[in-house]
Amino acid sequence: MIKIVIIGSGNVARHLISAFSESAEVELVQVYSRSEESATGIPEAIRVTHDLNNLAEADVYIIAVSDDAIGAVSGSLPFNDRFVLHTSGSVSIDALSSNNRNGVLYPLQTFSKNKAVDFRQIPICIESGSPEMYPLIEKLARSISDTVFKIDSQQRNTLHVSAVFVNNFTNHLYKIGNDLCTEHGIPFDILKPLIRETAEKVMVLSPSEAQTGPARRGDSNTIKKHLELLSDENQRNIYTLLTQSIQNHGEKL
Amino acid sequence: MIKIVIIGSGNVARHLISAFSESAEVELVQVYSRSEESATGIPEAIRVTHDLNNLAEADVYIIAVSDDAIGAVSGSLPFNDRFVLHTSGSVSIDALSSNNRNGVLYPLQTFSKNKAVDFRQIPICIESGSPEMYPLIEKLARSISDTVFKIDSQQRNTLHVSAVFVNNFTNHLYKIGNDLCTEHGIPFDILKPLIRETAEKVMVLSPSEAQTGPARRGDSNTIKKHLELLSDENQRNIYTLLTQSIQNHGEKL
Repeated sequence: MIKIVIIGSGNVARHLISAFSESAEVELVQVYSRSEESATGIPEAIRVTHDLNNLAEADVYIIAVSDDAIGAVSGSLPFNDRFVLHTSGSVSIDALSSNNRNGVLYPLQTFSKNKAVDFRQIPICIESGSPEMYPLIEKLARSISDTVFKIDSQQRNTLHVSAVFVNNFTNHLYKIGNDLCTEHGIPFDILKPLIRETAEKVMVLSPSEAQTGPARRGDSNTIKKHLELLSDENQRNIYTLLTQSIQNHGEKL
Repeated sequence: MIKIVIIGSGNVARHLISAFSESAEVELVQVYSRSEESATGIPEAIRVTHDLNNLAEADVYIIAVSDDAIGAVSGSLPFNDRFVLHTSGSVSIDALSSNNRNGVLYPLQTFSKNKAVDFRQIPICIESGSPEMYPLIEKLARSISDTVFKIDSQQRNTLHVSAVFVNNFTNHLYKIGNDLCTEHGIPFDILKPLIRETAEKVMVLSPSEAQTGPARRGDSNTIKKHLELLSDENQRNIYTLLTQSIQNHGEKL
């Protein structure tokens, strides 16, 4: 059994708490949360502390706090030479205090409070500051996920910005679709099967193979009609920029 | 049984041929294709003609040809006062020749040659030029799909531009994610569960509720870091525009 302590009580921390609680190879010995209030909803069976000086003995400490707080929290840990991981996609391994041996365990997923996720399907990107620590991080990751990738800090940055494109920006395009429908009395539900199929297509085809639409076809009549139809300048700007980018195959200028 | 003729042999026509062939309420009596070559792969059991003057008797004629050809094909039909539909998202019902009684049956989906679709899950938007024709179009649509919506030509235009945002543009964001991964030796597979989850989230949450990421959080450090990391000007422009749009909630300027 790998004994772990999770430091944090936000979205990512809570998903890790529930994933590791179900793992047969891991014992979650303690959770740290800043205050009693922030610990609300953590299952009662789990030991909680609000004082970093009372952290329990463990094989691995997992810091799952906001990006900006990672450095300070790792610097406040009252011990040396233990294994300490953070879970952020956009923070370098070097942000962790060198008092301890460091690594990263980054689950690449979008976590919402109100939607359960199947953790075994979530890719986990791991990095180790020292080779002897790697097998333990890998074992920890594999105990909750079926897909584990070795990814260094620079690759993780790239992955994080890629995730912004395919997740945050994509969701914003859904919002624009929703706004247009609402404005014209059309139920957004009509678009849902298309949204799902668009995502499913790139599971089996490359995005280049899957590309369709007026920009891809060079159908300038339809493009012109669409731009006339959009009354919002922001929507027109996005339409124009993405149409041009598709026509240039998203290539470097 | 509703007797139908399908005019066309492209992507949409072929998906309709296979959907209507399986429908118990519809008899596909004939398919028109321009040439022998363009009919390749249409099942042998189906009667095919290459001459509009040899079209069989039917209750409904479904024109599934490219947008630009709809007007000319409908004008070349050698009969009057029959029921004629087109299947396009971006063409008005008025593009059909007034020699016949007109309607639209628009399946809102992205069709690829190499990927099968479950037609019953595809929303079909229908419009009728004359009230007496509506029940027949509705019956036809319901014979192949579980979700049928009454949508007029103006709404269909809006729906088509919305579909460009949630399908064509979204797929292009997937491509940028893929390009970034390839450039840095990261397998695109890591992003696939995130792509799927992003789509699944808006099945149960509104896009506004589902929005996460640095733009939504106002995390200007991460945004700055991402822009420094992107070496391609086109990618930076898209990142900047979509980030601003998220921060303005996609609202009118």
